[in-house]
Amino acid sequence: MNIKIGFGVDVHQLVEGRDLVVGGVNVPSEIGALGHSDADVLLHAICDAMLGALNLRDIGFHFSDQDPKYKNIDSQILLRDTFKLIKEKGFHLGNLDATVILEKPKLNPHIPQMQETIARILETEIDNVSIKATTHEKVDSFGTQKALKAYVVCLLTR
Amino acid sequence: MNIKIGFGVDVHQLVEGRDLVVGGVNVPSEIGALGHSDADVLLHAICDAMLGALNLRDIGFHFSDQDPKYKNIDSQILLRDTFKLIKEKGFHLGNLDATVILEKPKLNPHIPQMQETIARILETEIDNVSIKATTHEKVDSFGTQKALKAYVVCLLTR
Amino acid sequence: MNIKIGFGVDVHQLVEGRDLVVGGVNVPSEIGALGHSDADVLLHAICDAMLGALNLRDIGFHFSDQDPKYKNIDSQILLRDTFKLIKEKGFHLGNLDATVILEKPKLNPHIPQMQETIARILETEIDNVSIKATTHEKVDSFGTQKALKAYVVCLLTR
Ligand SMILES: [Zn+2]
Ligand SMILES: [Zn+2]
Ligand SMILES: [Zn+2]
Repeated sequence: MNIKIGFGVDVHQLVEGRDLVVGGVNVPSEIGALGHSDADVLLHAICDAMLGALNLRDIGFHFSDQDPKYKNIDSQILLRDTFKLIKEKGFHLGNLDATVILEKPKLNPHIPQMQETIARILETEIDNVSIKATTHEKVDSFGTQKALKAYVVCLLTR
Repeated sequence: MNIKIGFGVDVHQLVEGRDLVVGGVNVPSEIGALGHSDADVLLHAICDAMLGALNLRDIGFHFSDQDPKYKNIDSQILLRDTFKLIKEKGFHLGNLDATVILEKPKLNPHIPQMQETIARILETEIDNVSIKATTHEKVDSFGTQKALKAYVVCLLTR
Repeated sequence: MNIKIGFGVDVHQLVEGRDLVVGGVNVPSEIGALGHSDADVLLHAICDAMLGALNLRDIGFHFSDQDPKYKNIDSQILLRDTFKLIKEKGFHLGNLDATVILEKPKLNPHIPQMQETIARILETEIDNVSIKATTHEKVDSFGTQKALKAYVVCLLTR
């Protein structure tokens, strides 16, 4: 088939002393995301959704969190390299729809900048890169600022 | 592309003294869903999935939970208004598949009525509106009747 | 439309004294998945995604966890029977993308065998059966080995 579906989900803990990078944007926040790379939960979930659509394993397979080369790396580089793999297979992005779960701060003011960043890397129009931000209504770790999560679905076409 | 993918997820706390409205159906229950509107987790996730597919932001952007106009509002009105936006863009629903996570009561007896309600609003056939109900196997807040969640995926076509 | 989207999510508790069966593979582990059947979280989510795409209810509707006939059953049988229903409707699998959330053990070494098993049952190529494994970063029950979860999206075509 010339159309493929992918799904990605990513989770990071929120801790003091780290930046909060989401969708390539450094969001002002008292707590940030813990991880080997810059811990960009949204870009990681996008990578996983695109890789999954073409059965290209996952982000951990291509960019190991044990590899010092990826320590604190800007995840835009990982997204760019992921998209190279997609293009090599002859595919491009149809559209993606992302949801970021974070109790606070509000991500909405930063969404246009995230979309621009991602659309540029994925060589597509902004309308193909939807990003929604929502809270977890104070439920469990995602609702109490201990962690954040991103879900992404995408369609790739040949 | 003439086909777009969307994804929505919504969470509400379960508390005493509120109705449990799911998919437009008032489900008999000792506890109900907390929220500014009627807190219909399923209709909210459907709205978000459809808005996300066309990069139309999210339900909170169009129907703010700070706006007194939406206090205790029937979410069928929000779904109807969301679908208007979809049609204005020249799209309609291909199909959607929803999953509601709720430990109890059992939603299964009410699913046909939910499907009818949603299919009517979205001007589609019932077979394009799948609703599945499942438990969270007693795990975390969704498994202990403290909260409920809905996931929705959809395809829109031009 | 000749293309349908489906989504499945499944959760099982992890306990001592049970096998850990994921994607039809018995994974060596000190704790296993609790459930009426073999509690194969991945195969259950695949069944639910395929059933949901065609509005065929869900796995619990077809294979009740109250029915002694399904006690400890190999979920490959449930997947095979699910796929029969799909074929009876004139559909087959486009592709699916699965994500299993499990803190440990590592599932990656077992993924090729899972893919072979599932692709054989669904009469498709391995490239249409993507399986990704990830952790929940020590967050909540999924991050502390108390439970595991699987998400699946799929496209079915006529
Ligand atoms: Zn990550
Ligand atoms: Zn809601
Ligand atoms: Zn199960």
